[in-house]
Amino acid sequence: MKETAKKPRSLKRRSKPAGLPPGTLIYVGERKVETVRITYIDYDEHNFAEKQVSNIEECFAFKTTPTVTWINIDGLHDVKIIEKLGQQFELHPLVLEDILHTGQRPKLEDFEKYIFIVLTMLSYNGDNQTVEAEQVSIVLSSNFVISFQERIGDVFDQIRDRIRNAKGRIRKMGPDYLAYSLIDAIVDSYFTILEKMGEKIELLEEQLVVEPTEQTLHQIHSLKRQMIVLRKSVWPLREVISGLQRTESALIKDSTSIYLRDVYDHTIQIIDTIESFRDMVSGMVDLYLSSISNKMNAVMKVLTIIATIFIPLTFVAGVYGMNFKYMPELRWQLGYPAVLLVMVLVAVVMLFYFRKKKWL
Amino acid sequence: MKETAKKPRSLKRRSKPAGLPPGTLIYVGERKVETVRITYIDYDEHNFAEKQVSNIEECFAFKTTPTVTWINIDGLHDVKIIEKLGQQFELHPLVLEDILHTGQRPKLEDFEKYIFIVLTMLSYNGDNQTVEAEQVSIVLSSNFVISFQERIGDVFDQIRDRIRNAKGRIRKMGPDYLAYSLIDAIVDSYFTILEKMGEKIELLEEQLVVEPTEQTLHQIHSLKRQMIVLRKSVWPLREVISGLQRTESALIKDSTSIYLRDVYDHTIQIIDTIESFRDMVSGMVDLYLSSISNKMNAVMKVLTIIATIFIPLTFVAGVYGMNFKYMPELRWQLGYPAVLLVMVLVAVVMLFYFRKKKWL
Amino acid sequence: MKETAKKPRSLKRRSKPAGLPPGTLIYVGERKVETVRITYIDYDEHNFAEKQVSNIEECFAFKTTPTVTWINIDGLHDVKIIEKLGQQFELHPLVLEDILHTGQRPKLEDFEKYIFIVLTMLSYNGDNQTVEAEQVSIVLSSNFVISFQERIGDVFDQIRDRIRNAKGRIRKMGPDYLAYSLIDAIVDSYFTILEKMGEKIELLEEQLVVEPTEQTLHQIHSLKRQMIVLRKSVWPLREVISGLQRTESALIKDSTSIYLRDVYDHTIQIIDTIESFRDMVSGMVDLYLSSISNKMNAVMKVLTIIATIFIPLTFVAGVYGMNFKYMPELRWQLGYPAVLLVMVLVAVVMLFYFRKKKWL
Amino acid sequence: MKETAKKPRSLKRRSKPAGLPPGTLIYVGERKVETVRITYIDYDEHNFAEKQVSNIEECFAFKTTPTVTWINIDGLHDVKIIEKLGQQFELHPLVLEDILHTGQRPKLEDFEKYIFIVLTMLSYNGDNQTVEAEQVSIVLSSNFVISFQERIGDVFDQIRDRIRNAKGRIRKMGPDYLAYSLIDAIVDSYFTILEKMGEKIELLEEQLVVEPTEQTLHQIHSLKRQMIVLRKSVWPLREVISGLQRTESALIKDSTSIYLRDVYDHTIQIIDTIESFRDMVSGMVDLYLSSISNKMNAVMKVLTIIATIFIPLTFVAGVYGMNFKYMPELRWQLGYPAVLLVMVLVAVVMLFYFRKKKWL
Amino acid sequence: MKETAKKPRSLKRRSKPAGLPPGTLIYVGERKVETVRITYIDYDEHNFAEKQVSNIEECFAFKTTPTVTWINIDGLHDVKIIEKLGQQFELHPLVLEDILHTGQRPKLEDFEKYIFIVLTMLSYNGDNQTVEAEQVSIVLSSNFVISFQERIGDVFDQIRDRIRNAKGRIRKMGPDYLAYSLIDAIVDSYFTILEKMGEKIELLEEQLVVEPTEQTLHQIHSLKRQMIVLRKSVWPLREVISGLQRTESALIKDSTSIYLRDVYDHTIQIIDTIESFRDMVSGMVDLYLSSISNKMNAVMKVLTIIATIFIPLTFVAGVYGMNFKYMPELRWQLGYPAVLLVMVLVAVVMLFYFRKKKWL
Repeated sequence: MKETAKKPRSLKRRSKPAGLPPGTLIYVGERKVETVRITYIDYDEHNFAEKQVSNIEECFAFKTTPTVTWINIDGLHDVKIIEKLGQQFELHPLVLEDILHTGQRPKLEDFEKYIFIVLTMLSYNGDNQTVEAEQVSIVLSSNFVISFQERIGDVFDQIRDRIRNAKGRIRKMGPDYLAYSLIDAIVDSYFTILEKMGEKIELLEEQLVVEPTEQTLHQIHSLKRQMIVLRKSVWPLREVISGLQRTESALIKDSTSIYLRDVYDHTIQIIDTIESFRDMVSGMVDLYLSSISNKMNAVMKVLTIIATIFIPLTFVAGVYGMNFKYMPELRWQLGYPAVLLVMVLVAVVMLFYFRKKKWL
Repeated sequence: MKETAKKPRSLKRRSKPAGLPPGTLIYVGERKVETVRITYIDYDEHNFAEKQVSNIEECFAFKTTPTVTWINIDGLHDVKIIEKLGQQFELHPLVLEDILHTGQRPKLEDFEKYIFIVLTMLSYNGDNQTVEAEQVSIVLSSNFVISFQERIGDVFDQIRDRIRNAKGRIRKMGPDYLAYSLIDAIVDSYFTILEKMGEKIELLEEQLVVEPTEQTLHQIHSLKRQMIVLRKSVWPLREVISGLQRTESALIKDSTSIYLRDVYDHTIQIIDTIESFRDMVSGMVDLYLSSISNKMNAVMKVLTIIATIFIPLTFVAGVYGMNFKYMPELRWQLGYPAVLLVMVLVAVVMLFYFRKKKWL
Repeated sequence: MKETAKKPRSLKRRSKPAGLPPGTLIYVGERKVETVRITYIDYDEHNFAEKQVSNIEECFAFKTTPTVTWINIDGLHDVKIIEKLGQQFELHPLVLEDILHTGQRPKLEDFEKYIFIVLTMLSYNGDNQTVEAEQVSIVLSSNFVISFQERIGDVFDQIRDRIRNAKGRIRKMGPDYLAYSLIDAIVDSYFTILEKMGEKIELLEEQLVVEPTEQTLHQIHSLKRQMIVLRKSVWPLREVISGLQRTESALIKDSTSIYLRDVYDHTIQIIDTIESFRDMVSGMVDLYLSSISNKMNAVMKVLTIIATIFIPLTFVAGVYGMNFKYMPELRWQLGYPAVLLVMVLVAVVMLFYFRKKKWL
Repeated sequence: MKETAKKPRSLKRRSKPAGLPPGTLIYVGERKVETVRITYIDYDEHNFAEKQVSNIEECFAFKTTPTVTWINIDGLHDVKIIEKLGQQFELHPLVLEDILHTGQRPKLEDFEKYIFIVLTMLSYNGDNQTVEAEQVSIVLSSNFVISFQERIGDVFDQIRDRIRNAKGRIRKMGPDYLAYSLIDAIVDSYFTILEKMGEKIELLEEQLVVEPTEQTLHQIHSLKRQMIVLRKSVWPLREVISGLQRTESALIKDSTSIYLRDVYDHTIQIIDTIESFRDMVSGMVDLYLSSISNKMNAVMKVLTIIATIFIPLTFVAGVYGMNFKYMPELRWQLGYPAVLLVMVLVAVVMLFYFRKKKWL
Repeated sequence: MKETAKKPRSLKRRSKPAGLPPGTLIYVGERKVETVRITYIDYDEHNFAEKQVSNIEECFAFKTTPTVTWINIDGLHDVKIIEKLGQQFELHPLVLEDILHTGQRPKLEDFEKYIFIVLTMLSYNGDNQTVEAEQVSIVLSSNFVISFQERIGDVFDQIRDRIRNAKGRIRKMGPDYLAYSLIDAIVDSYFTILEKMGEKIELLEEQLVVEPTEQTLHQIHSLKRQMIVLRKSVWPLREVISGLQRTESALIKDSTSIYLRDVYDHTIQIIDTIESFRDMVSGMVDLYLSSISNKMNAVMKVLTIIATIFIPLTFVAGVYGMNFKYMPELRWQLGYPAVLLVMVLVAVVMLFYFRKKKWL
């Protein structure tokens, strides 16, 4: 798991062979759950029913009931289930293909009778500090919402609670409000990831000031990559929500539209923050590189100072180490101390020069 | 205080748990004032009243009076007050959520009966040389303006004075002009921050020429970050004001529209200046890096010159320091001075070569 | 072959002499097949015929039959064939010129009676790890599709199979669906190339962490160039498909339009992925450069440590190697061990200093 | 003067205190002339009058005359004059504020009865090689043009001459043609500045090839800053002129519109040139940095060659300088010449190796 | 000639003094031909006449003949000729100014009776490997085309041939087709320049891999500049052709429009190619810089290895060269060989360490 999680989704898309007919149902992701889990929640203002079913046919009755029904499918590897569901609820083959072909770009498609929405749900994996993506597909009709997820575990538990306990206005509203709530929950969860990233940025900035290592750079690089993934999910999301808000479809009521505007604002805010983060992170690479070259300068300076002081002195010592027969200085009584003195003087002058040059 | 101020707002947004119903009222900021301060100013061309009230209910009467009423709330931690106000003045739950959920992107929402505006008020904190942000929310109706601030202290004192003393045309105009005045004051205060930044840029440029240190780079980096924050506030502000100016809402009178165009021009000018600053600052990073490598070059040159002159000379001295029995030169009368002469010649030739190469 | 494949197409376009009349039919590419291969597939829901013909005239009859006919031409060097075909099927001279003038930018032109589409088919050459481009021109009319390819071998075999075996809905649909299928196959094949690139990026990233060599940089650079080529093909492709989808031409039926929207989504996804790859690759250049300078730092440090420790010690040895007559220390009983001790001390102090400076 | 001129205008804008009522008349610039100079030129096809007046009231009569009147004000520090003029000619308070609040972004405002234009007049100061900016505000009405400048001296003398001597068509045209002429003169003067910059770029490029110094980089940086200033003036100018050209105001006659298109083309050309210059200059920074590192390489090579040749030789000399009692070589008759020969051989081999490596 | 050709046109525009009346006829270029050469070609489907005239008046008759007349003027220094022509053919003074004021941005102006087109004709000068620009102005009317060139020599010879020999459809079409042909020839000639650039890019890339020198960088830089010039010509060209194609002028017939679309496609392709080239070239600068620093690393490594091996050895030799009276080792029988052995061991250990560190 850890292994695969490191590679951003975009690099792993298993493409279908070119030329296959459109609507061919093959699940391209990896099997992430043992068995497909199908649950439904059926409600209106006064009634409520929730059940995990083992057989997709149990949900077919809800197609025509006036109540709001939310069918949730966790696990996509059983193509049969998706196919049956598609036939029963009259979904276009391309919709089914998109559901199974995970790794889709977030998008919105209006098929009059229903609206098809593809989203990316992101979650932060604390173990290997990466962002993991999962495709959530939502089919919104006039009396039901069907959601498809790759694995069990999502950010919708609060919504389920609100339906169960009739908190807020969700039980009084239609399936469009439910769909909005799902989207809102996904968008809200992005903020959590941004916070994690913000914390990491601050951590790295501190490291950069105190003790930058090659590790720091690799972490900056990995942060950059995560942002690229995040960005790829959020930019199209913006179009999706803006499309939902401005749609002329009767499936989205005006009363829900104002809530969509709110989610839209959040999306813009997320985009703004990502862009700011990108700016910050690219500034950090500069900081890193310059701190590396500053360090190198410091090293070079020490070398230069030691070398430039001692190389001339060693030369002088070398001169008086020569074995010429006729070197008058060697016989002077004060030759040795005089040479030592000269050496000290040379060293002092040099140190003074370096100080003046601000190398010390 | 100093600690938190260092971190730009965007990195600190405390997100609400994903899936909470929209309109849930939780204040996400830190409590910045002891007690919530509520003041109102009620005026028309001839009358004027100003009061600090301890109870929000005292303001409810103004909802229907024909005079212009400006209710200002400093401090948002008491959710109850906001809730009551919201109910009385019929504000949408999402509006209340946005007021409390500080750190919003500046935005404009038209709810027919009132217009809701979110702005960011920036102030320069001289102590730690950072820009601090505070969310100001404004509700503009046909006969009142309600403003919400996170803490006491704002840039509106001049406006209060003008109302008190009936300076200018403010007392003759409606609440839209008051709202315009608040926005104008906030936008004008951005210029002060730009001036501070301009001064800092000049200071840093001088440092770059005279004596760049690693500190300089960190200051450039921090300046860059402040600009990212500023930019995030100003770009959406532009949309807000442009939206206000072109709105078809009856709440904005034509006579005010021309003033909004003026603020709009200021916003554009601020954006232009920020972009210019960004260009300048990124040029400064280049300057810094190249001055660092210039310094390194200077250091390297000294090392090279000293080493290349003395290494050969030391070699010569080493040769005549060898203890071979049969070294004829050692016995020559003039061996020693001849070797010294050769050494001087070598040194002179090298210095000449370096001068020719312009390394000296 | 290997030689020419290295050079991206854009650098090789053999331009026609300036001022030649438009519609002059000269094939500018290299002759890539021995003989031109002409095949046709003629079908409707119930009938099917497929044949390789040696004479283009055999296809002329299909111009007016109500069945769907797909004429495929592999090899463009025989200008005569193209000319005859053009006359018979009433193609505009500029269309014929574009077919022969390979290396065109993907484009869409609507001539009422037919639609002319130029696409770039890319294939990954495993031998020299480059992307090879081939121009595919498609003429779509109300009852036939003519496709022109530079050489034998394409990504359409799955489509031929589907027609032969009446798989999917292809036999029930018109020529617009056939044209869509061709485009879809080409777009799908891009994903394969993206996968190869993704794998290469991961490989290079690993190399960057473990053992970056100059080779790595050249591979990054070559990857960058391939992306430039890919990008040049995909961006205009997007316009082509979006144009097809929104066209008001009667040649594209509504039922096909929804499939075109699907291809359009894929194109956007390809563009997104390319842009992400570009971001990643440019981050890799930074990583490479900094790892190079890190290596250099490591080398410099060793030099500095060795040099700064031994240069002073050698100087001390040099001093006591001088031949002055009066050097009292030389005669001390403990002179030699004392000097050795001093040397060890100097070395230890220096090592300690380096450790403190974190150079070790 | 020299001092202030160095700082680009954008960094000096003295902001008015936030919250001051709009239309407050304060001149924010520095007093640039001793006394305000007011001149008018009054003309139609047959008549002409020109006068410098000491009292603004002398111009009031022209408000209603059918002749074209051009009132020019040099110097803005006397707020009273502007105020009186504003009242007499019915200018909006915000217009007067913009006139006095120099450092405005070029803009165009249509007040039905008159059009208000703000432009930036640039002049090249040869003394300190900087570009100086001055705000020119123009009020264009159906029978007069009022222009406001910060100081005496402008680029309008040719226009005055043309009016005086009835050269060209200016005397036959209305005030819109006069306003056009003023704008045209300002835009033309930008070309002069571009020429100066072009010359400087060429000079710097030559310096880069021959002898780049740190000074060169600072000049490139200063050039970059001047371009930022220029750009800030020209981009909005484009909008102003395009706005004038497309305006539906009756104040701009169709016959003038064609001339405005011409100025518009010039503006685009200026923008193109600035963008090209920016590209060139940023390429120059790369050139500079690489020439610096090339120089460093050259220095390093010399050091390496000298050091790598002599360090081993010195070692050999050191070995035979050791004082071991039993060193057989020292007593060989040919020991000394043999060692010298070995040394020469080592040096030759090394030089050969360096040549092979192309370091020489 | 060679001298001036080096400087891109944009840096040389000799501006007219600010404030000169528009339409003032001054030729700002350098005189590039001895005498102005005036030629005309007059044709319709059946007739053809071609003549070089010495007097512009000879062409005046063609103003009203129904045949298509192409008047070509080589050389612009004789302002009189242009003026007379302008008067006779009723050209707007601004048109004449633009013709003479060479160095214009490519543009299209529709004067109802005629269309005025400015283009840049580029030619590759093999001598100094630069791109040379020449302004070509075209006036297209309902029965004539006038073209103005700065010097003799153009890319229109093929067109003249086609007219003379009635090749293609040119003799059957009107002046709009002739104008299209001229534009097409110019655009086609850009491809030749792109090819030259492509070849140069490949050459430089090879140099970068094999043996990058400072010369290489200067060539990359010069290539970059040429691209800037090319880009400045092509981007506006795109607007010109797109304008021509969408114009509602009766001067452009529908049958010509389809040919214009073809030229438009070529322009887009040229732009694409230039942008790709830019991307490639900027990648090359990175490659160059990193190959430089790789070389430096190689040099540094050699220095480090030599120095770190011999510096300690020299120290050891120095120790035993000291003249202390009491140094027991010096008297050992095996002292000398032992020391030599130690030295060899030290060297071997170090070489082993370097190999392990992959520095060898």
